[in-house]
Amino acid sequence: MTAALSAHELIARHRSTLDQALEAIRTRAYWSPHPEHPKAYGENGSLDAAAGKAAFDALLGTRLDLGQPGTDDWVGGETSPYGIDLGVTYPHADLDVLLPAMKAGQRAWRDAGAEQRAVVCLEILKRISDRTHEFAHAVMHTSGQAFMMAFQAGGPHAQDRGLEAVAYAYVEQVRTPDNAEWTKPQGKRDPLAMTKQFTPVPRGIALMIGCNTFPTWNGYPGLFASLATGNAVLVKPHPRAVLPLALTVQVAREVLTEAGFDPNLVALAAERPGEGIAKTLATRPEIRIIDYTGSTEFGDWLEANARQAQVYTEKAGVNTVVVHSTSDYKGMLSNLAFSLSLYSGQMCTTPQNLLVPREGISTDQGPKSYDEVVADLAQSVDGLLGDDARANALLGAIVNPDVKTRLEAAAGLGEVALASREITNPDFPGAVVRTPVIVKLDGAKPDDEAAYMSECFGPVSFAVAVDSASDAVELLRRTVREKGAMTVGAYTTDPEVERDVQEACLEEAAQLSLNLTGGVYVNQTAAFSDFHGSGGNPAASAALCDGAFVANRFRVVEVRREA
Amino acid sequence: MTAALSAHELIARHRSTLDQALEAIRTRAYWSPHPEHPKAYGENGSLDAAAGKAAFDALLGTRLDLGQPGTDDWVGGETSPYGIDLGVTYPHADLDVLLPAMKAGQRAWRDAGAEQRAVVCLEILKRISDRTHEFAHAVMHTSGQAFMMAFQAGGPHAQDRGLEAVAYAYVEQVRTPDNAEWTKPQGKRDPLAMTKQFTPVPRGIALMIGCNTFPTWNGYPGLFASLATGNAVLVKPHPRAVLPLALTVQVAREVLTEAGFDPNLVALAAERPGEGIAKTLATRPEIRIIDYTGSTEFGDWLEANARQAQVYTEKAGVNTVVVHSTSDYKGMLSNLAFSLSLYSGQMCTTPQNLLVPREGISTDQGPKSYDEVVADLAQSVDGLLGDDARANALLGAIVNPDVKTRLEAAAGLGEVALASREITNPDFPGAVVRTPVIVKLDGAKPDDEAAYMSECFGPVSFAVAVDSASDAVELLRRTVREKGAMTVGAYTTDPEVERDVQEACLEEAAQLSLNLTGGVYVNQTAAFSDFHGSGGNPAASAALCDGAFVANRFRVVEVRREA
Repeated sequence: MTAALSAHELIARHRSTLDQALEAIRTRAYWSPHPEHPKAYGENGSLDAAAGKAAFDALLGTRLDLGQPGTDDWVGGETSPYGIDLGVTYPHADLDVLLPAMKAGQRAWRDAGAEQRAVVCLEILKRISDRTHEFAHAVMHTSGQAFMMAFQAGGPHAQDRGLEAVAYAYVEQVRTPDNAEWTKPQGKRDPLAMTKQFTPVPRGIALMIGCNTFPTWNGYPGLFASLATGNAVLVKPHPRAVLPLALTVQVAREVLTEAGFDPNLVALAAERPGEGIAKTLATRPEIRIIDYTGSTEFGDWLEANARQAQVYTEKAGVNTVVVHSTSDYKGMLSNLAFSLSLYSGQMCTTPQNLLVPREGISTDQGPKSYDEVVADLAQSVDGLLGDDARANALLGAIVNPDVKTRLEAAAGLGEVALASREITNPDFPGAVVRTPVIVKLDGAKPDDEAAYMSECFGPVSFAVAVDSASDAVELLRRTVREKGAMTVGAYTTDPEVERDVQEACLEEAAQLSLNLTGGVYVNQTAAFSDFHGSGGNPAASAALCDGAFVANRFRVVEVRREA
Repeated sequence: MTAALSAHELIARHRSTLDQALEAIRTRAYWSPHPEHPKAYGENGSLDAAAGKAAFDALLGTRLDLGQPGTDDWVGGETSPYGIDLGVTYPHADLDVLLPAMKAGQRAWRDAGAEQRAVVCLEILKRISDRTHEFAHAVMHTSGQAFMMAFQAGGPHAQDRGLEAVAYAYVEQVRTPDNAEWTKPQGKRDPLAMTKQFTPVPRGIALMIGCNTFPTWNGYPGLFASLATGNAVLVKPHPRAVLPLALTVQVAREVLTEAGFDPNLVALAAERPGEGIAKTLATRPEIRIIDYTGSTEFGDWLEANARQAQVYTEKAGVNTVVVHSTSDYKGMLSNLAFSLSLYSGQMCTTPQNLLVPREGISTDQGPKSYDEVVADLAQSVDGLLGDDARANALLGAIVNPDVKTRLEAAAGLGEVALASREITNPDFPGAVVRTPVIVKLDGAKPDDEAAYMSECFGPVSFAVAVDSASDAVELLRRTVREKGAMTVGAYTTDPEVERDVQEACLEEAAQLSLNLTGGVYVNQTAAFSDFHGSGGNPAASAALCDGAFVANRFRVVEVRREA
């Protein structure tokens, strides 16, 4: 088969980007090839805002035919958190046809080698990048993220995380040379001489189980890590967030075909309502790798039951911020207010428990009591979200009814320091938009512990009164150890407290942001520089992205001969 | 505490060796810093043959007091496969005292950083190397290996595998820099600027469960990989092979102390007869990493039950050699005869199933029928072992009664092409020494399948008649997929058969040796160059040694601050 896109052409297009990504993961300095600004798109083949919106609109109510073998039905039924029915249907697969078809192209994909796989992945990411405006609407109308966040987190930031995974996968595979000559001296006798060939081989078919809130951002690392290491990848999206991943699969299949590979190396497994296909898929013998983002319950089930596969999970956690002291009280409050408000707290990285000493904290504006700190934070959130347009742009919509239920129940857990408000979205009257609730709890009360020691995913945070800084550190440590955490924050001007918080994070393997008062937030991480999760506490078994995330997705087979 | 051995001094001693090891794992060319010849020892502080023997003799009948906390008893009872009682007793631990004590030194060990940990590990290996003669006797009298093999495989080759693991662990930890400056442009506004610190942190306490046959060779990779990545390591030796690992622990504790670290970072867990302490240890919450070599049954149990730990297992497998054609019939026979005889086939890498087309094979000496091939191989083994002194030097002793029982039963499985013989060892009248048995089986007979599709660990191999080369490849493929394999060999002069065998090995992730006729054997792998196992078939979940073997033994914790 003559490929429309030759290996040579793809290397010419993407090798320098790959090299820059490799350099970025070594230095962990800032880098991204994917523009964050919506106006940066519209040239060189990329869709501008209007074209992206039109492309999205054209998808609504259509059948997205990916040309997959074994399609036995068409399924769909996504309703946007903004209130509109997407009406898109997707192929439903007969697994006994689709899975064997996915294996057919693996040999050629394996034989292509690490570099060619990497540049094919980069071409896929490039075409997704060109359609960022279209993807932004797809992410917005499945996750409920506000447009700007859907654009950035679902677009360039997700693409960055995908590219980062490709870079790690590439460098891991080329650590072992393709060939080696081995000559061992034997004293006076002739040396022993061997020729050795080393080939990275895939594990099999990888299953990527997508989530509702960040279908692309959380999905791309596993998808691209598996594909770049030679595996076929079956994408099982969350039933409420199919479209962004279906488009991703479509692009991948297109590029694979043009590059002369079998498009079935990437396929979609959409499901009927209530079908629960993830359990069936996860235990199929063909599935050898699983990436999952979602509930602790199902993550634990996968780890216990999908024993034939390497399983990478991101599950629930309870994120803590220790509020001890600050030299920038105003900056601290506005930074925290933003973190609590962004996407209505529906991020696995949003702080939940704010630990504040009950005797108060010292600040550049003098001592502040526990009650003052909580009230000032509530006011800061109120101020941030006082304007409805800004509130809508920051909060997005509540992703699903469970979050709304939890939010409503949270007010009954303690004294409400900041009540949640309904906000109307003039563009989308059907959107459920809510501001965050802040509830006061007492760290010394056993009754309150049940609340702050559980993840309450959504716009809910607890201002937990603690006895002292060391009490805060102990509670932080226990929370991470028992419940896991994707992020930890701390505000302190005391070197001893800072040291103790750091030590707790080092011992419990949690990622720590210290004294954030500006435009970087505890709940945001940047690809190529920040690790997302640590893989060392119960919130996640893997970090995005490191060597461990890619190294076991392939194995190296050696063939040796006498020279 | 002032350390007798400063970091500076250790780096001066070992950095260049570390750098050479790093280069070796990149090129996979031949390299070793550990001399293979017994006469190379005796200078620069190393023990010569006489001094090593004297040191070993002095250990017999003594209590090996390692100075471990929580020692509540002294246990022992090793009997050499050569018939002598070692009479050495070891500390038995109260785990509730020992495990907390092992954690006490972890912070300082973590804070020392990757380089210092590496050079401390290299100092441990250097001192073990200096005592290679002493270790050789300890390995010989626990594993039953003949002296020369115990010397080489238990000494320099094991040390090589340990050093290789240290090199992988080091390079994995320094992939992420200690610090990074991150500056993100913000258009006309001031850039966002962050300072980031990255610290490799250990998972906790690692458990290394040793095996009977290669206590040091199979034990050192996990032990050193875990220690070099900052974990404390608890060594649980096989009850029949305690001494080599107890000496290893002793040396490690000595070096750690001299280097200013807590000796309890490495400890021994010896057990009473029948105590079965491995199950208790493996599920303790403090144990976060497990390395295991042994039966499939217990390996599977560990994988299913030690859910709080990263588990690396090497289990049983069925190794196959496809015998299709050769341009050096004599070389093939002598190479295979050596592989079947070495250490009485008590290696996880020894070929078990020799697949020979029933219509015979083509050779440089003309066509040979199936019966001729088998008879000639039997004769070749007979010739190799015809002299009792040479037979003893090659075979060693049968490691335990189970192997003897299996060997005796094997003769009943089919037509015996070569019967096992008893050999007397004049130096050790109590040694059980046996030559290998070769049994003819028919690949087309369902009754024979039960035999050749199970691991029969020991000096037993099956000459399995198959219908054709493609039948052989299919059986090879099925055997690896269902039973696993540490090694695969093939003899063929036909490029198509060679290609098919290679493809089967690539698809089933098995390490392949092609047409070996000289001094390199299918059952031997060289550290820094050959992978031991693939980690991709049921015989082992890890390969020695690669990135995946070390990358998940630590996590990286990031602390970020506004710049």
